[in-house]
Amino acid sequence: MTDRREFRDLASPEEARAVVDSLDVDPGTETVALADARDRVLAERVDAALDVPGFDRASMDGYAVRARDTFGAGEATPETLELAGTVHAGEEPDVTVESGAAAEISTGAVMPAGADAVVMVERTTETDDGVEIRTAVTPGENVMLAGADIAAGARALGPGTRVTPREIGLLAALGVDEVRVRSRPRVGIVSTGDELVRPGEPIDSAAGEIYDVNSDTVAAGVEDAGGEPVLYPHAGDDFDAMERLLHEAADECDLVLSSGSTSASAVDVIYRVIEERGDLRLHGVAVKPGKPMLVGTVGESAYVGLPGYPVSALTIFRTFVAPVIREAAGLPEPRTATVTGEMAVDERYTEGRLRYMPVGLVEDGAGTTLVYPVDKGSGATTSLVDADGTVAVGADTERLPAGRRVEVTLFSPDVHVPTLFGVGEDDPLWNRLLDRVETPRYLPTGTADGRRRLREGVPDVAVVSGPSTDDEPGERLGDWDREWGLAVAPDSDVTDLAALVDGEYRFVNRDAGSGLRRSFDAAVDALADERGVAPGELTDAIDGYGLTTGATERPARKVAAGEADAGLALRATAATLGLEFVPLGTERVRVLANPDRTGKESVERLRTLLGDLDDLVASLDGFEG
Amino acid sequence: MTDRREFRDLASPEEARAVVDSLDVDPGTETVALADARDRVLAERVDAALDVPGFDRASMDGYAVRARDTFGAGEATPETLELAGTVHAGEEPDVTVESGAAAEISTGAVMPAGADAVVMVERTTETDDGVEIRTAVTPGENVMLAGADIAAGARALGPGTRVTPREIGLLAALGVDEVRVRSRPRVGIVSTGDELVRPGEPIDSAAGEIYDVNSDTVAAGVEDAGGEPVLYPHAGDDFDAMERLLHEAADECDLVLSSGSTSASAVDVIYRVIEERGDLRLHGVAVKPGKPMLVGTVGESAYVGLPGYPVSALTIFRTFVAPVIREAAGLPEPRTATVTGEMAVDERYTEGRLRYMPVGLVEDGAGTTLVYPVDKGSGATTSLVDADGTVAVGADTERLPAGRRVEVTLFSPDVHVPTLFGVGEDDPLWNRLLDRVETPRYLPTGTADGRRRLREGVPDVAVVSGPSTDDEPGERLGDWDREWGLAVAPDSDVTDLAALVDGEYRFVNRDAGSGLRRSFDAAVDALADERGVAPGELTDAIDGYGLTTGATERPARKVAAGEADAGLALRATAATLGLEFVPLGTERVRVLANPDRTGKESVERLRTLLGDLDDLVASLDGFEG
Repeated sequence: MTDRREFRDLASPEEARAVVDSLDVDPGTETVALADARDRVLAERVDAALDVPGFDRASMDGYAVRARDTFGAGEATPETLELAGTVHAGEEPDVTVESGAAAEISTGAVMPAGADAVVMVERTTETDDGVEIRTAVTPGENVMLAGADIAAGARALGPGTRVTPREIGLLAALGVDEVRVRSRPRVGIVSTGDELVRPGEPIDSAAGEIYDVNSDTVAAGVEDAGGEPVLYPHAGDDFDAMERLLHEAADECDLVLSSGSTSASAVDVIYRVIEERGDLRLHGVAVKPGKPMLVGTVGESAYVGLPGYPVSALTIFRTFVAPVIREAAGLPEPRTATVTGEMAVDERYTEGRLRYMPVGLVEDGAGTTLVYPVDKGSGATTSLVDADGTVAVGADTERLPAGRRVEVTLFSPDVHVPTLFGVGEDDPLWNRLLDRVETPRYLPTGTADGRRRLREGVPDVAVVSGPSTDDEPGERLGDWDREWGLAVAPDSDVTDLAALVDGEYRFVNRDAGSGLRRSFDAAVDALADERGVAPGELTDAIDGYGLTTGATERPARKVAAGEADAGLALRATAATLGLEFVPLGTERVRVLANPDRTGKESVERLRTLLGDLDDLVASLDGFEG
Repeated sequence: MTDRREFRDLASPEEARAVVDSLDVDPGTETVALADARDRVLAERVDAALDVPGFDRASMDGYAVRARDTFGAGEATPETLELAGTVHAGEEPDVTVESGAAAEISTGAVMPAGADAVVMVERTTETDDGVEIRTAVTPGENVMLAGADIAAGARALGPGTRVTPREIGLLAALGVDEVRVRSRPRVGIVSTGDELVRPGEPIDSAAGEIYDVNSDTVAAGVEDAGGEPVLYPHAGDDFDAMERLLHEAADECDLVLSSGSTSASAVDVIYRVIEERGDLRLHGVAVKPGKPMLVGTVGESAYVGLPGYPVSALTIFRTFVAPVIREAAGLPEPRTATVTGEMAVDERYTEGRLRYMPVGLVEDGAGTTLVYPVDKGSGATTSLVDADGTVAVGADTERLPAGRRVEVTLFSPDVHVPTLFGVGEDDPLWNRLLDRVETPRYLPTGTADGRRRLREGVPDVAVVSGPSTDDEPGERLGDWDREWGLAVAPDSDVTDLAALVDGEYRFVNRDAGSGLRRSFDAAVDALADERGVAPGELTDAIDGYGLTTGATERPARKVAAGEADAGLALRATAATLGLEFVPLGTERVRVLANPDRTGKESVERLRTLLGDLDDLVASLDGFEG
């Protein structure tokens, strides 16, 4: 057994935050063009180098006059002034307005010498004698004096100002075409673990390879926080390669994050490099998810080691690392978006450390936000998108009862509560239906789970298949039939259920929670009945009856891979995978609504879609249900 | 007089929105790499093409066993299993676990054949005989089954999903390295008007040139909304050039925005091009700011003409155009950030059309948000940054009394209420002081305005200079002296105030609201007193006494430009501009706090800074106060 490190002395979240905050991630400053300044942060004060406007400027179309000449003018008592000339915007006036005269002027044009006000064109009439003025103006009226907007020397924008379109407007007005801003901190991302493969490359599942989730996820998080991510090539578990990579990253970056493997040996490698070539300031923090976190330095760079599981890595990144990157980039903490809701179910928790509990949100019929925990187990990447935010559960809290009001910190202010939340059977047509609903969330955890959760009252709808139960919960919104049977290789001898039972074939079944499996079991029962034997006799005769999977297409995929002779499947799946299909029956897929949620816009939308199912299927290009 | 178009039949805001919404700005779809997918919007559903995990995966470090072999095992009744081998993450198991055996396994490794559970390492001990198991496990315990995270064929992400780090995580887990997303709508920006100059280029103020504010501002707004801005070269007012440009932009973009000049002739040119080559669907909308808005098509592209004034242009852009760009990009409307506050002053409004009133925010001592209108007049670009959001004032609302609760729509969710709001005299040292305060807002509108507004109770502090008044408002937080006098050309004969009065010199004064001017008037009064004449006699003798400016450095700049012989100035200003300085006196700059705001963190911060003023000045590299 290798010498595995344990994190016996976990730091408190506050200690961890203090240690991470103590890291020096300052990226310095740089000069960027105005067009690239959006969302950057000014590194220094910008003073106006010129007056805006740079000249006394007409702010109306009309006539530039000496205000004194208009005193007494009115609709009934017009004053006629001699027309001395015209001034357009963008040209130097070649006219002087003497007493008794006026010059035609455009909005934005330079006030001609002598004039001190503008009469708007609507209150004038040109005549053969000149221009008739039908209103009195005061000195300065309809004129913006030079520097009145902002004066040369005035403080225009302070250091630390975030540049939005509004600041760009002011900088442009000042003629500024480049600004000094805080640099984006460069954040190196080093992934470790022999089992990791970059997305897009082929993967060998039999050898335990998985795609590298954390590199891209954390890189996107770095960008969100105002940093510039630098992805380093994948290092495996080789100590020398890892050491070289970490040093390269430390030389080139302000902060290095390592991330990837959950295996102890990969973590060991990192641990040794940091201890030998850097300074390890913290290992392990008492939060869930996220315990295994390393903080220190490598060379001149700051270093944080993220846990291997994606949800843990992103939680630690968000909670401890993103604030440091934002601070270094000069960006303010984002306005935390929080939502208050009621726990939809009981939640128990007894691990005695702070937990950021991932939760999903759903609105009930009355508009109350319900909060349910999302916990698909360590390492599940779907938890990333099945949750909307987290509830901080203190180390001392052992139970959150249903109905308890909790505050949810949304993952970002852009997170919207899904309009529709459903749970249940996976089905190809249903997946297409969901495309027609705005921002739905659907957890394909099977018929049994859908039924159970609908009874608990959490989802808006459940989708079930297989034999009906007498006490089917909810209100049926609609249904359709689907053909199920066995996916087999071309030219297979498995031609019906009896052949499967009686022959020597390797079969792959679905899990007991799926509706498809219930349909299969009903067919087995019927055959047993026909033969006058106990169903167990038949199932015992099927090699692989107990070999189940929750993955819809997996039985068929096993067949396609040559690892099995027959798999429980839908006709659609067999077709997709290019397999033969032995039909064993038809089952009805039912969409059941939570009775409290009918009337909810998304549920009614679904009811309408289900009412036009034939039209929908017809519109699905190449769809085989 | 040219035939100027009037917008007599203004559309209602609702009509305008409907017309803009009817434009076709759909940019189609494109494929981007996963690393570039952040903040993009999926154009189509992504189904899982593989099971995740792709194999039955150990989720703990420990020993892979047959669960049945552990039944009955406990701390007091350990069960010893034969050690059959080892499986690391990222390798294909070369061991089969028979009954009575166990294989060492790392987190993330492939479960070896025969094994159906993992015993965590902490509950085991390796001995000479094999491995001692001190707990019972159930089948599947500490194992994540293939496809349990997400199964091949399952719906992973729906069309219309915005890609955040979480979605990137799921896509990476599925091995997806590129995704089909909505294209960003290309938005062409054409600026018009002979008077416009691009920032960074030299400007001729005497010829009425100004910097083009709208192009960069609107471009940044387009990016914020998820579009891709394309800036076209500036077109002037030339009909043929403008026509060519608009057509080029229409050919290359989904939407063309024209923006820039406020002059009627430039608007006329656009108007003619649209009428001749496109389809004009709307001109003029009844909102303030923003009345002159054009909506239609040019060739195959949608077209919106924005008003010329920057605040109007940005308001129209935000209100009508940004939602259309977001919709085309597939982005949701951002969660509107609103703040409720109390009107700090009375506001009257009688124009009878919907007004988006720009407002600033300040917190009073009790934490209540106060709302004050920001209206620096048409065309002021500083209004862009002096406001935090807008209050929609209905066409029928004629008055918003002080104390009325109003809802402010912030310009963006990132807008934070400035920590410190001050009004008053412009001063170089004060500008430096502000650099030490987080996100301050300061309006350098002069001593008189500062005093007036402090009496109204709106700002946190006012900065005043010139002679003290008996009833100076507020509490003095601190003060410093500054030298003032005349900025003159080198070798000038203006050596003192008497010379200015008695000689023939062109003088430039400051406006009556500035403290500096009050100090100057006091000096004139003193000289008149000394001479036994009325002050008016002396001021009449100064050529330009009535020629005033609100721009701090402008009098000195007039001298530097050779357009005047003497200008009222600070020593610091004369030094900055390389002029000689004739000292006439010293005045005290006082920082006065709103009595209700002492105790506010930023005000106390200021009090501390003012207490260490000598230190601060010493730290200012090269500062001449």
